Amino acid sequence: MKYDLSREEAQRLDEQDTLAPYRRQFIHAEPDLIYLLGNSLGRLPQATAHRLNDVVNGEWGQRLIRGWMEGWMELPHRVGDKIGSLLGARPGEVIVADSTSVNFYKAVLAALQLTPGRSKVVTDDLNFPSDLYILQGAVRASGGNHQLHVVPSPDGIHGPLAALEEAIDEETALVALSHTVFKSAYVYDMAAVNQIARRAGTHVVWDLSHSAGAVGVDLNAAQAEFAAGCTYKYLNGGPGAPAFLYVRRDLQESVLNPIPGWMGQQEPFEFGLEYEAAGGLRRFLTGTPSILSLSAIEPGIDLLLEAGMQQVIEKSRRQTAYLQQLCQEYLQPLGFKLRSPLQPDRRGSHLALAHEEGLRISLALQERNVLLDFRRPDNLRLSVAPLYTSYSALYDAVQQMRAVVAERLYEKYAHEAPAVT
Amino acid sequence: MKYDLSREEAQRLDEQDTLAPYRRQFIHAEPDLIYLLGNSLGRLPQATAHRLNDVVNGEWGQRLIRGWMEGWMELPHRVGDKIGSLLGARPGEVIVADSTSVNFYKAVLAALQLTPGRSKVVTDDLNFPSDLYILQGAVRASGGNHQLHVVPSPDGIHGPLAALEEAIDEETALVALSHTVFKSAYVYDMAAVNQIARRAGTHVVWDLSHSAGAVGVDLNAAQAEFAAGCTYKYLNGGPGAPAFLYVRRDLQESVLNPIPGWMGQQEPFEFGLEYEAAGGLRRFLTGTPSILSLSAIEPGIDLLLEAGMQQVIEKSRRQTAYLQQLCQEYLQPLGFKLRSPLQPDRRGSHLALAHEEGLRISLALQERNVLLDFRRPDNLRLSVAPLYTSYSALYDAVQQMRAVVAERLYEKYAHEAPAVT
Repeated sequence: MKYDLSREEAQRLDEQDTLAPYRRQFIHAEPDLIYLLGNSLGRLPQATAHRLNDVVNGEWGQRLIRGWMEGWMELPHRVGDKIGSLLGARPGEVIVADSTSVNFYKAVLAALQLTPGRSKVVTDDLNFPSDLYILQGAVRASGGNHQLHVVPSPDGIHGPLAALEEAIDEETALVALSHTVFKSAYVYDMAAVNQIARRAGTHVVWDLSHSAGAVGVDLNAAQAEFAAGCTYKYLNGGPGAPAFLYVRRDLQESVLNPIPGWMGQQEPFEFGLEYEAAGGLRRFLTGTPSILSLSAIEPGIDLLLEAGMQQVIEKSRRQTAYLQQLCQEYLQPLGFKLRSPLQPDRRGSHLALAHEEGLRISLALQERNVLLDFRRPDNLRLSVAPLYTSYSALYDAVQQMRAVVAERLYEKYAHEAPAVT
Repeated sequence: MKYDLSREEAQRLDEQDTLAPYRRQFIHAEPDLIYLLGNSLGRLPQATAHRLNDVVNGEWGQRLIRGWMEGWMELPHRVGDKIGSLLGARPGEVIVADSTSVNFYKAVLAALQLTPGRSKVVTDDLNFPSDLYILQGAVRASGGNHQLHVVPSPDGIHGPLAALEEAIDEETALVALSHTVFKSAYVYDMAAVNQIARRAGTHVVWDLSHSAGAVGVDLNAAQAEFAAGCTYKYLNGGPGAPAFLYVRRDLQESVLNPIPGWMGQQEPFEFGLEYEAAGGLRRFLTGTPSILSLSAIEPGIDLLLEAGMQQVIEKSRRQTAYLQQLCQEYLQPLGFKLRSPLQPDRRGSHLALAHEEGLRISLALQERNVLLDFRRPDNLRLSVAPLYTSYSALYDAVQQMRAVVAERLYEKYAHEAPAVT
């Protein structure tokens, strides 16, 4: 679809947008701020502050230790099931605990238990660095039993699907990929990769951090086995909120948690001296869950459930297509290069643009109340969070970017100041 | 010292107690509740609710992603240093991150890197079960390179110091112990155990969960090398609050984080594909820290810093001695058996009592507004949290226990209902 790229049309699109009312469910402390960083830290839902107040004062303050018997023990599972329902998983297939990297580590070491004797660990160079670091650590700890094969992307944008298919063979112990790639927003065909792995008798661990809450994921339909992901991006769970772990039901009791703590013990309050793994996914819990941060996740997820994940995904696709057209119309003539896939179904909820003055452009935009993401050397990312991003905001952000470059407003900024996830 | 065990004397002791005003720094939602579970979940400090409100609305809500550059990145270190100052560690030797069990896992696998070729992992059967489970997992993952030696306590109360000394030899890869034992409150002589290990050329990982904030710990003076511990007991950090990790400065760069995530990377925002461990203890960070839970820890620690750790430790010793005399006077004649050490310097901040009707006694007490801890089969624990436990509360709790047993008030309760952490 070809959009009319006028300011009036942006407003008209907002008026027609059935999800637009959700914008008011989030805090907008600076009403003029254009925030295109939902891929990094989602906005604060109105309900979250109230919920935390209840948990702190009503639960911890009032019920004290009794809180554990009044809902806290179930929280990793209850919130996990809600996330699972956004991702095409069944109840009991997702828990919330620890950080994304720790969950990814658990999933990787668990999946490796299924392929003894195999040596290749396959990933790509678009994967999120923390995942690569975890894989490097796992390979190092294997004492030479595993080697890491990092398949390069042909262009730094698209996943190397054909090369991966070639690399995944009967020596492959594990495949680990980001479903939506953090830099370019390339989205893997999850079912296709899972099928390639299955044919080779191996297993895939997916990182869903840049997918969950904005990009279509149907774990069961895609026959996914292991996945981890974060809750502070499109799930709006708060800075560093606990992450989630998915293990398909039929595999849960075939693998052990590599960090076997008491919360994953069959009977934690019996205090037995020998570890016995709990049935089901609970065995993948380790320590005592962080109740405050964990409680803060739920209101953001509830908003997605209420809005309907399919509506959210469709709006993300419409808005990224709209943003792409804005960029092509207003920014490409000024030297910005699109660094995301053009096919809508291979692209997540953000767009990457390259510009050699990216850092200074991002600093100039920040002073003009436009927050987006810059990564060295030249990568600018603009993210669409369907529950609170408006078409007008996208239009205005692009016009600001145009002005900053056309009028060389970035020149007064120094080459400094790192941006942050 | 021998106490006068009258109600009037309890009140007099409270009046003379210079730490008594700190009681008002905590929320007491049920003013009549006697809460002797500070060894499990500490009370909510008044300042914590305010602090969380600031972090949620002022930082996340208002500053959004900018929060990472405005203090969040330093939080694991800033709060860690404060905990370190309570425990005799230098700045840069303690970080806050993950759960206790995950930190313990990291410390164990890091310490094992220092003793290649050695096979024995030595612990005792008084250690907290989650630590034993982690050790069992580590030994299993070593593929036969390590074996776990669980040295039994002679009486289920005292640490088996002599037997440990015998077990720790030139084959010992690692020693792991709880400094204060969760069941009996036995406290190891940390310096003595470290010296035994040092002589054998091996390393000790301490779990400080039941010590931090109530029991004397001087990590540097005791030449401790590795430790982990929790913040939700005597540090009053909130349910499941992130835990801490101590690695002595001179060892930090001799070991690698076994779960090497991006927060421990030398330059996390360069997004390099190869892991390079950060200098210092930051390499032991893994994923993005949980800012809400992490921020909630600080007000409780600030109270301990303000009160002075030495004052807190001395009050804990006075109150546990007082509680011991109350128990001997009023409870031992009714069949309660003291299951904690008698020597004050070998005892932490709680007392354990055995009674075959422990479960039903705890249920009867709960109905009488006395909350304490019951563990199967017969273990009742009464904890002293010096910042908010009064002498009167200890007196009244013991009188309620006496009444419940003397008048057989527990008989109407069923043998059911598990107690919690």
